[in-house]
Amino acid sequence: MKNYADLWTGYKARKSAGDIAVLKKFYLSGGAESDKIVINAVKELKDGLKAMLGIDPEVVYGQAAGCAPVANGKDIQDREEYTVSLCDDGVRIDAKSGSGILYGVFDVLRTVSCEKDVKAVYASGKKVRPSNPLRMLNHWDNMDGSIERGYSGESFFYVDNEIVIDDRTRDYARLIASVGINAVVINNVNVKQAASYMITDRYFDKLAELGEIFAGYGIRLFLSLNYASTIEIGGLDSADPLDENVIAWWKTKMAEVFDRIPTLGGFLVKADSEGRPGPFTYGRTQADGANMLADIAKEYGAIIIWRCFVYNCRQDWRDRKTDRARAGYDNFMPMDGDYHDNVILQIKNGPMDFQIREPISPLLGGLKKTNQMLEVQIAQEYTGHQIDVCYLIPEFKEILGFRTYCGGDKDTVADIISGDTFGSRYSGIAAVTNTGNDFNWTGNYLAGANLFGFGRLAFDTELSSEEIAEEFVRMTISTDDAVVKEILDILLPSREIYERYTSPLGIGWMVTPATHYGCSVDGYEYDRWGTYHRADHLGIGVDRTDKGTGYALLYNEPNASTYNDPEKCPDELVLFFHHLPYTHKLHSGKTVIQHIYDTHFEGYAEAQQLAEKWNALKGKVDEDIFENVSERFTRQLSNAREWCDQVNSYFFRKSGIPDEKGRQIW
Amino acid sequence: MKNYADLWTGYKARKSAGDIAVLKKFYLSGGAESDKIVINAVKELKDGLKAMLGIDPEVVYGQAAGCAPVANGKDIQDREEYTVSLCDDGVRIDAKSGSGILYGVFDVLRTVSCEKDVKAVYASGKKVRPSNPLRMLNHWDNMDGSIERGYSGESFFYVDNEIVIDDRTRDYARLIASVGINAVVINNVNVKQAASYMITDRYFDKLAELGEIFAGYGIRLFLSLNYASTIEIGGLDSADPLDENVIAWWKTKMAEVFDRIPTLGGFLVKADSEGRPGPFTYGRTQADGANMLADIAKEYGAIIIWRCFVYNCRQDWRDRKTDRARAGYDNFMPMDGDYHDNVILQIKNGPMDFQIREPISPLLGGLKKTNQMLEVQIAQEYTGHQIDVCYLIPEFKEILGFRTYCGGDKDTVADIISGDTFGSRYSGIAAVTNTGNDFNWTGNYLAGANLFGFGRLAFDTELSSEEIAEEFVRMTISTDDAVVKEILDILLPSREIYERYTSPLGIGWMVTPATHYGCSVDGYEYDRWGTYHRADHLGIGVDRTDKGTGYALLYNEPNASTYNDPEKCPDELVLFFHHLPYTHKLHSGKTVIQHIYDTHFEGYAEAQQLAEKWNALKGKVDEDIFENVSERFTRQLSNAREWCDQVNSYFFRKSGIPDEKGRQIW
Repeated sequence: MKNYADLWTGYKARKSAGDIAVLKKFYLSGGAESDKIVINAVKELKDGLKAMLGIDPEVVYGQAAGCAPVANGKDIQDREEYTVSLCDDGVRIDAKSGSGILYGVFDVLRTVSCEKDVKAVYASGKKVRPSNPLRMLNHWDNMDGSIERGYSGESFFYVDNEIVIDDRTRDYARLIASVGINAVVINNVNVKQAASYMITDRYFDKLAELGEIFAGYGIRLFLSLNYASTIEIGGLDSADPLDENVIAWWKTKMAEVFDRIPTLGGFLVKADSEGRPGPFTYGRTQADGANMLADIAKEYGAIIIWRCFVYNCRQDWRDRKTDRARAGYDNFMPMDGDYHDNVILQIKNGPMDFQIREPISPLLGGLKKTNQMLEVQIAQEYTGHQIDVCYLIPEFKEILGFRTYCGGDKDTVADIISGDTFGSRYSGIAAVTNTGNDFNWTGNYLAGANLFGFGRLAFDTELSSEEIAEEFVRMTISTDDAVVKEILDILLPSREIYERYTSPLGIGWMVTPATHYGCSVDGYEYDRWGTYHRADHLGIGVDRTDKGTGYALLYNEPNASTYNDPEKCPDELVLFFHHLPYTHKLHSGKTVIQHIYDTHFEGYAEAQQLAEKWNALKGKVDEDIFENVSERFTRQLSNAREWCDQVNSYFFRKSGIPDEKGRQIW
Repeated sequence: MKNYADLWTGYKARKSAGDIAVLKKFYLSGGAESDKIVINAVKELKDGLKAMLGIDPEVVYGQAAGCAPVANGKDIQDREEYTVSLCDDGVRIDAKSGSGILYGVFDVLRTVSCEKDVKAVYASGKKVRPSNPLRMLNHWDNMDGSIERGYSGESFFYVDNEIVIDDRTRDYARLIASVGINAVVINNVNVKQAASYMITDRYFDKLAELGEIFAGYGIRLFLSLNYASTIEIGGLDSADPLDENVIAWWKTKMAEVFDRIPTLGGFLVKADSEGRPGPFTYGRTQADGANMLADIAKEYGAIIIWRCFVYNCRQDWRDRKTDRARAGYDNFMPMDGDYHDNVILQIKNGPMDFQIREPISPLLGGLKKTNQMLEVQIAQEYTGHQIDVCYLIPEFKEILGFRTYCGGDKDTVADIISGDTFGSRYSGIAAVTNTGNDFNWTGNYLAGANLFGFGRLAFDTELSSEEIAEEFVRMTISTDDAVVKEILDILLPSREIYERYTSPLGIGWMVTPATHYGCSVDGYEYDRWGTYHRADHLGIGVDRTDKGTGYALLYNEPNASTYNDPEKCPDELVLFFHHLPYTHKLHSGKTVIQHIYDTHFEGYAEAQQLAEKWNALKGKVDEDIFENVSERFTRQLSNAREWCDQVNSYFFRKSGIPDEKGRQIW
């Protein structure tokens, strides 16, 4: 008995996929029969069709495309695209590499698993090209087995400071490859303990083995680096990126690392952030730091992914001029064009930190001469800890669809990170992932929709939230139409419901300090983190206009003018950009205070409705799944009630303005 | 080189103690020469006089009183009293036991150390009888070496789950005996880990040894018990105090414990509190639980000290009827008279939990047929973590002097706990202690004044805060009159200053949750601990009058009427008892809101003045002491500034009422 669920790679028996005779023969073209990715793909195809339909397909291998070595750049998309089409006696998958074959196979298996009509789906040929070159998961797993911001058990990569490789490792690779992930960082960006640095002899053999397993599923292994390695394990007294001894140490170290871990794609670095060391210590720029590492890594075809999460985390709450929201832009924009071509800046979707609602980072659409990657978070740090249901794909769709007005037709975030807008060599999207060694991987079974959905959306940004959710539910929980509909009715509105019962109108941060679960309206108000709501008895919000911190003006027009004007600013972000009286009328026609009351009462009531919907599924879904989600709904309702009552009480006590509808405020 | 300071037992050279020829000969009467306490006393006398004055006194032993076995009851005071007087060729110490001799010796040494005129002090004979039978320290030391609410290092009793006995152990006994402590509980009242239960064979030998060392200084050893021991180490499935198997297990266990640790005085128990097990689990009363243990312990002359800190720690903040302040009274008063005669109820000074200002617990003066002990806290949990200077003796003086109007002349708290009011057999005072393995024992050298002062005050409740502080400073830091004056000017107002920059008017609890250091006005406002300020845009405070929770009426008259009426209630407690508008005029003539602003600005300014006073002592006190306290003042000022600014900002933002004096509010 495995101690983990197969989730959407479970391949249970399926009733219908239309005329399935066509599935008895497959012509695979573009990957060599001996290519280990092709071998894995064919095994997956055979196992899947056998399990779902009882079919043992014949496989005919066609011409193999030249199988390029693993690479990170824009050419990935060419190598990964595939076409699935029908021929007289079977299905053709045409690709240009083993990865393309693998993704084609997963496409077919998904079609069957969702009980779609195979012939209808592939009748006119289905060609899919990944939307993004890099589609990455960032694990914040620590070597001791704990996971920073992990809500689903301990790490399955590490136990007691050793790397673990077992069946779960391989099934993890299958699971994420099946949704199109092609890169994974396996250790926390906060690399704190020298003993846990993985670029030492202690870990090379295991990392090489892990890299090979991943490579068999078209996934590149990446590692998080501690910028101060030269000091902490190198015996030097500096980490100055322009210091010759530092450079020499890294040259030697990287030669060793890439020799010992041939599949390694590169490194992720969090520098000068939240107490982490970095080039600022030595009076150098972020570009100096990133370029030094990148120049050395370039020889090995590797890249440096450099996080833009740099801000003053020792701010004085009395200070209304410093604006954390500006920090990423102010720190990174001046060097646009200075980053070498194998550096990617990894930019969080918002300027703060994964709140349930934030504007898009102005670096996206600001930077024009720099490789960029979007960072989102499916670990539900601020969005319910995988206790509360919060299907995040609708949020990610909004982010990707945001028009930055950076020039030209292709100006959305999706365009930028695909590399199309600026012809970037390296680009893509990364998610701080939500997995752990819980049986169901993600704590709450429904949180699996975010892992599934992130991969699917990263692969094909044109997919809708609804399509993705439906695929997830059909493949993972049930193919019963009525059940599917009920679960979609839970997942699809869940993010807006979560938003309604938590922080209103884009202001964010009303969370319990440190844990980030549960309500504490003033929890971060008098703290050092740059996260304030500035509520007083008259109003609330942060003035980030030209009269305030000027943050709104960092956007391209017309976004800057829109955000700068409270009459134009979208309601859902209005308190992020403006300090407004409680009596200010929103576009919705409600006052700010009435909006707060209404959304909180509604959000809690809606959460109750979600729980009721779920409870009605008893007996209609696996008991394990039912009980898992039920137990979490109990906790979600308790949380939602606290949020509702605390936020409403806080603002009633502060403003003295009663609820128009006379509901109970404590 | 010792790794700890001698503090007030350092006995440095002294310049004057008047005509010291009289100190060359001592007549000791009342303790046998062979009594180990007398042996320790004589050693202390000789060491001390040698070090301070170069005198090696001759000692003449007189008649020994019958040396009664160690006991806990009212008769302790008889055995511990002493008289120091002068005779033609020396000093006489007359006592009725070794303990009396020891205390007399420490009296003489203190006189010399303070450079008082020996002849003047003892000319007409000085007879001292301890004010309280039990004068106890409660250590919250855990077996793993950590200390709950410890701010001065780790435990010196435990390292890695083993008991440590070394020179420091003996010097600890000297240190606390010198100020009159006669009982110590060495382990945390929260006995959580079965492995750390000390009533097992693993620890008996060490405990016996420790008990002997303590006994040599007139100190009785006590242990904290886990009420569920029958289940957790006894293998039973119950801890029901009326269950025969439970009773039988305890009989066997106690026989073993008292056999192996002959000096053991008894046990301290925290039951049914904050998640601890207790008799409520079995539908039994607190008296059932305490009496069961006491009846068994009685055979060994031992007592059970039962804490009254029982309340609902899972309260709903929306609930305005439940009042944590009532809990101790409501839980313990109905059984007044039911507790057996070797049970003592240990009652915290206030009804909440060691806030900087609370009313006196109404159990003190409420209970009339029950042995009572007062519990105070010198560990500065809510009073600055031994970072901020907070000399607590003035507070303890207020507590002891509080008139309960429980009937008769002797109705103060001091009268009650001395046993005089009700002729109690067992009574006294305990402090949750502030020591750890820091070099100076208490983190901040000035926090040593609370350890010193608690002992001195427990021994003689007539001493003034000023006398005690002066003794501490002269014995520990300096005998230079100017230096003494400056330090007294720091210590004596420090508690009121701390109160001014923290929670106003008795409301308490505006602290950072869990750590209890630093300001968080709403930190406990929406939580489960029963600790609310109920501030809204109009006012603040908890209505505990007859129209509210009724708590005020739990006091005897006229206290009940005083507290029940906002016009009579003392300003410093007015928000504890009343919810008042910010515009309410206090007796001081200020409004509530202006009081908040004024006290916070003043408190912070005064803290700055204390720090300046201390800084002026550079070069005038030992550098070690100077640097230790300076470093803490830096942190105190940062803390005081945060308190001042956060509290003022919070209430300005909430009330909208400006400071009359136009000072900076953020």
